[in-house]
Amino acid sequence: MSAPLLGVDLGGTSTKLLLGRPGPDGAEPLEQTQVPTPRGPGALDLLADRVQAFLAGRTVAAAGVTVPGLLDGDGVVTRSVNLPWLDGVAVGDVLGTALGVPVVAVHDGRAAARAEAVLGAGRGHADVYVLTLGTGIAGAQVIGGQVLAGAHLSAGEVGHVSQDDHGRLCSCGQRGCLETLVGAEHLARRWQEVLAAEGSTPQTAPTARDLVEAARAGHPGASAVLDQATTALARALLALLATVDPGLVVVGGGLGQAADVVVAPAVVKLTERATFHSVPPVVPSALGPWAGAWGAVLGAADQR
Amino acid sequence: MSAPLLGVDLGGTSTKLLLGRPGPDGAEPLEQTQVPTPRGPGALDLLADRVQAFLAGRTVAAAGVTVPGLLDGDGVVTRSVNLPWLDGVAVGDVLGTALGVPVVAVHDGRAAARAEAVLGAGRGHADVYVLTLGTGIAGAQVIGGQVLAGAHLSAGEVGHVSQDDHGRLCSCGQRGCLETLVGAEHLARRWQEVLAAEGSTPQTAPTARDLVEAARAGHPGASAVLDQATTALARALLALLATVDPGLVVVGGGLGQAADVVVAPAVVKLTERATFHSVPPVVPSALGPWAGAWGAVLGAADQR
Ligand SMILES: [Zn+2]
Ligand SMILES: [Zn+2]
Repeated sequence: MSAPLLGVDLGGTSTKLLLGRPGPDGAEPLEQTQVPTPRGPGALDLLADRVQAFLAGRTVAAAGVTVPGLLDGDGVVTRSVNLPWLDGVAVGDVLGTALGVPVVAVHDGRAAARAEAVLGAGRGHADVYVLTLGTGIAGAQVIGGQVLAGAHLSAGEVGHVSQDDHGRLCSCGQRGCLETLVGAEHLARRWQEVLAAEGSTPQTAPTARDLVEAARAGHPGASAVLDQATTALARALLALLATVDPGLVVVGGGLGQAADVVVAPAVVKLTERATFHSVPPVVPSALGPWAGAWGAVLGAADQR
Repeated sequence: MSAPLLGVDLGGTSTKLLLGRPGPDGAEPLEQTQVPTPRGPGALDLLADRVQAFLAGRTVAAAGVTVPGLLDGDGVVTRSVNLPWLDGVAVGDVLGTALGVPVVAVHDGRAAARAEAVLGAGRGHADVYVLTLGTGIAGAQVIGGQVLAGAHLSAGEVGHVSQDDHGRLCSCGQRGCLETLVGAEHLARRWQEVLAAEGSTPQTAPTARDLVEAARAGHPGASAVLDQATTALARALLALLATVDPGLVVVGGGLGQAADVVVAPAVVKLTERATFHSVPPVVPSALGPWAGAWGAVLGAADQR
């Protein structure tokens, strides 16, 4: 059996390391661990040391590393909001030299979506749309195991399709985007407004998770906020079916896990509203927080 | 030089025949002509006779035929509204036997979009979105020369994305679809309503073309109808850029040719509204009514 592959998922505060072989059986890791993300000058050398400690002498055929930011065609980071010390760095080349194996840098979001489609909930399907519902909302169409990144690497910004020109202002500068109705921060703010209207002033700022729990507990104001959110999500999914016609939709992210009060009601509304559309199965993501590391492993597999 | 390829674009009333070689110089036909579409039993044999007369003894390497309807995986027509006698027929096989060359059947709309992207206005671009504005509105994403047909062969139904739950009823059963705002029949109806409100009763039912001419002549009611239409088109294009991020948009169809009062104002609004979006060039289609025949030629080229 060939040497395994290494996936490094570089996050803002912690970095996941995963040793595995992607195969027909999906994502079964040989070993995985999490280390603090080193920062500043010399950070990548420090990271290489941590990787060597994790490998403990085992050989890998190749490695992939996710980058939380934009990469140019040569694998140089052009902009990373969360890890500014990566700007201008050819992360794959630097780590590759330190580790003595070929290392490819991949975009974190696209890598995670690809892993969900290829090894996770989309396994066995040729035409998968991966939708991540969190503070931001990101989509990725994965056809034949490849993410369609778009001509300017910005496909999948379905969270920034406006549904209402007079809606709330979005971080992108438009009004009434899906994100203003379903994004976690906007949901938290809407929940806070409901509580304030009721005269309730919680000691800490409420979160989208609090909203989900209040809806589960039967709070009508919370249910009303989520009702509006799931209607918006159903409309966005209908637009997606009409435009790209996926064979399967995989929903992940923090809010994607709230199947009972977010995803399931949206799918009911989607099904009620569908006319000519082919409504595909809508399933929860399967790889959880390790999707990015598996996406890095898939990037490594491309190098062999 | 290898034998040329034959493209047959089977239309509801007339059929286009084209002899050509697709190449780096694009779409330069060796010869092209148009014949009435035969109907009923024996129609394909009659069509083969007309093709033989057109070829006049010249050899072709392969042929493609467009079908105005749905095709199954074996090239059998499963449903053609305009040419019901094609139902259940393996058009490519039947024509191929009659002509003595391999003939592949292709979907008419996808074939035309592919030809526009590969040989027409999209030539040289790897990531093209072809938008056809007519009675219906159809989109096709063409990546690396291949149309993304969707998991159920229904991608590109951008005309049936609703912009308003309380809008006009659409042929698809939804309300407020793009087609109810920009489709030629809906525009004609809206123009008729404007005229009726003015007390004007034209002898023949007004068309979208009449509307375009009235707007060009400065009629405020006509301009108002097109203003609403181009706003809707701009919104649809913004959603498209956010979702699929094309490198080039090619606009064709009858209304696509009304660049001055339809496409250009929509692009101005699109550019004004764009925030994070990468706005690609929006260009008119180049192959005109011969796009389908060239798409058939491209299908033939795949067979070699
Ligand atoms: Zn937005
Ligand atoms: Zn419709």
